[in-house]
Amino acid sequence: MQQLTPNPSFSLTIRVQLPNRAGMLSSVIKALADAGGNLGQIDLIQQTRKISVRDITVNAYSSEHEEELVKVVKEIQDVRFIDVHDRTFNLHQGGKISIHSKIPVKGQDDLAMVYTPGVGRICMAIAADKSKAYDYTIKCNTIAVVTDGSAVLGLGNIGPEAAMPVMEGKAMLFKQFADLDAFPICLATQDVDEIVQTVKFLAPTFGGVNLEDISAPRCFEVEKRLREELDIPVFHDDQHGTAIVVVAAMLNALKVVNKPIEKVRIVMNGAGASGIAVARLLRKAGAANIQMCDSQGCISTDRPNLSPEKLEFASEKVGSLAETIKGADVFVGLSVAKALSPEMVRSMAEDRIVFAMANPTPEIQPELVENDVAVMATGRSDYANQINNVLAFPGIFRGALDARVKRISTEMNLAAAQAIASLVSSSELAPDFIIPSVFDPRVSKVVASAVQQVAYQQGLANS
Amino acid sequence: MQQLTPNPSFSLTIRVQLPNRAGMLSSVIKALADAGGNLGQIDLIQQTRKISVRDITVNAYSSEHEEELVKVVKEIQDVRFIDVHDRTFNLHQGGKISIHSKIPVKGQDDLAMVYTPGVGRICMAIAADKSKAYDYTIKCNTIAVVTDGSAVLGLGNIGPEAAMPVMEGKAMLFKQFADLDAFPICLATQDVDEIVQTVKFLAPTFGGVNLEDISAPRCFEVEKRLREELDIPVFHDDQHGTAIVVVAAMLNALKVVNKPIEKVRIVMNGAGASGIAVARLLRKAGAANIQMCDSQGCISTDRPNLSPEKLEFASEKVGSLAETIKGADVFVGLSVAKALSPEMVRSMAEDRIVFAMANPTPEIQPELVENDVAVMATGRSDYANQINNVLAFPGIFRGALDARVKRISTEMNLAAAQAIASLVSSSELAPDFIIPSVFDPRVSKVVASAVQQVAYQQGLANS
Repeated sequence: MQQLTPNPSFSLTIRVQLPNRAGMLSSVIKALADAGGNLGQIDLIQQTRKISVRDITVNAYSSEHEEELVKVVKEIQDVRFIDVHDRTFNLHQGGKISIHSKIPVKGQDDLAMVYTPGVGRICMAIAADKSKAYDYTIKCNTIAVVTDGSAVLGLGNIGPEAAMPVMEGKAMLFKQFADLDAFPICLATQDVDEIVQTVKFLAPTFGGVNLEDISAPRCFEVEKRLREELDIPVFHDDQHGTAIVVVAAMLNALKVVNKPIEKVRIVMNGAGASGIAVARLLRKAGAANIQMCDSQGCISTDRPNLSPEKLEFASEKVGSLAETIKGADVFVGLSVAKALSPEMVRSMAEDRIVFAMANPTPEIQPELVENDVAVMATGRSDYANQINNVLAFPGIFRGALDARVKRISTEMNLAAAQAIASLVSSSELAPDFIIPSVFDPRVSKVVASAVQQVAYQQGLANS
Repeated sequence: MQQLTPNPSFSLTIRVQLPNRAGMLSSVIKALADAGGNLGQIDLIQQTRKISVRDITVNAYSSEHEEELVKVVKEIQDVRFIDVHDRTFNLHQGGKISIHSKIPVKGQDDLAMVYTPGVGRICMAIAADKSKAYDYTIKCNTIAVVTDGSAVLGLGNIGPEAAMPVMEGKAMLFKQFADLDAFPICLATQDVDEIVQTVKFLAPTFGGVNLEDISAPRCFEVEKRLREELDIPVFHDDQHGTAIVVVAAMLNALKVVNKPIEKVRIVMNGAGASGIAVARLLRKAGAANIQMCDSQGCISTDRPNLSPEKLEFASEKVGSLAETIKGADVFVGLSVAKALSPEMVRSMAEDRIVFAMANPTPEIQPELVENDVAVMATGRSDYANQINNVLAFPGIFRGALDARVKRISTEMNLAAAQAIASLVSSSELAPDFIIPSVFDPRVSKVVASAVQQVAYQQGLANS
């Protein structure tokens, strides 16, 4: 089996007691390294003349690998295994976000102002003029992160409860990258009408709605109807967030190989929500030759019962992905793990670009084609060129809320993509650096200001 | 006109520039005091040889009174008025709560654990066993504060946007008093079926539902159906929170006048959600003689088309509130401002108890009958004996979530009332001290443990 890269999603902290003599710690470390573990922090917890207790942090590449690492430690003579924590599970204990008061309530006076009776005056001011909700409530800075749990990451239809950790994570990222207050709303229904109605009923609390991980084709209708029926911006992140970041990275990847977007042949795999949205925004950015595949191969106009979205990208051609990809300049995968083989990659044109963005496991592990591609990008944070929506959604909503737009336009999305791409200077641009880091503090700011600028140009701003 | 008490819900900060000479500050202060203002903090902002700039905080008793106070300052010779802030409106600017991350996201490693790809493992663990949502998501500590804006405080049907400041205030109190994370959900519907369905769809995110300010009789059905259909605790605070605190205060008020609850005649005014719930819990606590009035006077069994709730408390008697209250031991008002006249109070039995809890203005201003009652309580924080739900709901939900009950029982509510009452010791008990302060840190703890204890006794705990 091809050895995979250990990564922090499988991170253990193993506590061991060692006899306090030379060579003991190194034997533990060697055993872990020999078993493929990637060693991190090593803390000394306690030391006496006779023994030392240490916490050893080590990354694995799978749950099975985690178990194996624990096993090798247990087998070392004279080393006493104390316990092990899975750091990812530990981090999630009790959830990842909390609600805070902005104002202390220390005494009766505070209480009389923030709550009854003083609050009644604020209520009456809003009752007289609803738009004052933007001044005196959290509406001005608060986003609903709404899902039905039907298409969570690449994990499928796992339901609303299981979707919560992702939506909480999303709320953390809204806070971290754009100082927005986002709250997870995981709905116990997967019916389009019910989702639309529920979000409409919830809208008074929120300044924007981020739709997330709702499976296609329902997500298209949910978004379309909510955009029509609500007066706050609605953004399906899997579609537009992904599209913005893919287009940003693609603009720079094409610069690396020096091919114009109008001339390249792009093969896409995966015609779900994000695939369709990426294809649409690539077209808006100038791409003229896109062939889209799904699990049955190239989507051909001959095929019966095509959804309107698939029909939009159907081509005259027929054939499997392996056949379609031959000679293509660009592969964009938003599909499933292992959809792409090394042979398929090598069958592409010279200076090939591969975006393998299936989550959590890409269409092809980058290690397998390291020397076969000009530019490779994935959805993962543990490889170079991470296509991560966090580059887009915080700034998009920051801009949308600051300009108080009622709707986020395609032009705003394209401007956001160009703004993200522009942060990689020509001197920095390289095969392993086509997109800024998600921790680049300039990202959400340039995205927000690109959105605002287009809002003013299009006359969509209300602030 | 009867002079009302200035209070912090009408609080101004007036900035003035004064010539730096003796007597100037005192002339401003005297003018404000003469106009009925209640002076607070006085800050020196700037001082030169010639002038000083000061921020003078002063409480008024109404918006008109605020304007008057500003006017008298403007009229003082040699004093330059700079500006004025309404402190209550200032405090509400941008809303009163925010979402925080419990864990910093400093780099790729953190991101890979709290978000993709690491979060996928947590999702799969919950998908395999839904109850793990209580371990790895915010569900274990998070309350939805749900309203439709139909009966907000005493302000009436002001709608969901205008209800937000109250619900945000509520969320602050949940945090402050029980370290619970509560989030406001203000629904854009007042239809019972739609409210019930929406809350059911939202339930996966939350560990409990606090219903708030939904008008009667819809609130009864909403609560009943949600209690039946959800597996998390549902608590209509206007009913049960009010009932718990009224009963707690009543147990102690009756001790002050040395009358047993079984013997007193109680006249209630207001047969809305809170009135009915108070009457029910008073009965559960032993009250045997309750006469209930609404806007048409004593609710008589003769009256046609009585709601089931009103029928529950209908009596043989007929007559106005003024007629019914004659000779009564206790008045409990959950109705409207000025429903009670001083004459009506004086027509009651000796050692009369008056709970005038209309919000924000009581059935009778306590000043008007100061010497005519044995015990007086209101809903306001600026008088003694405040009947404030904040004494109940934080501890109720803390206990309910800690015991992981699916339902809050009447027995839990009564135990909570007795626990609150018990915090006023016999040596402390006095006409102006029948209920602990909302800032007494013991309150939510004894309430939570009373709830948990009953949960274990009744076999309702799941933790």
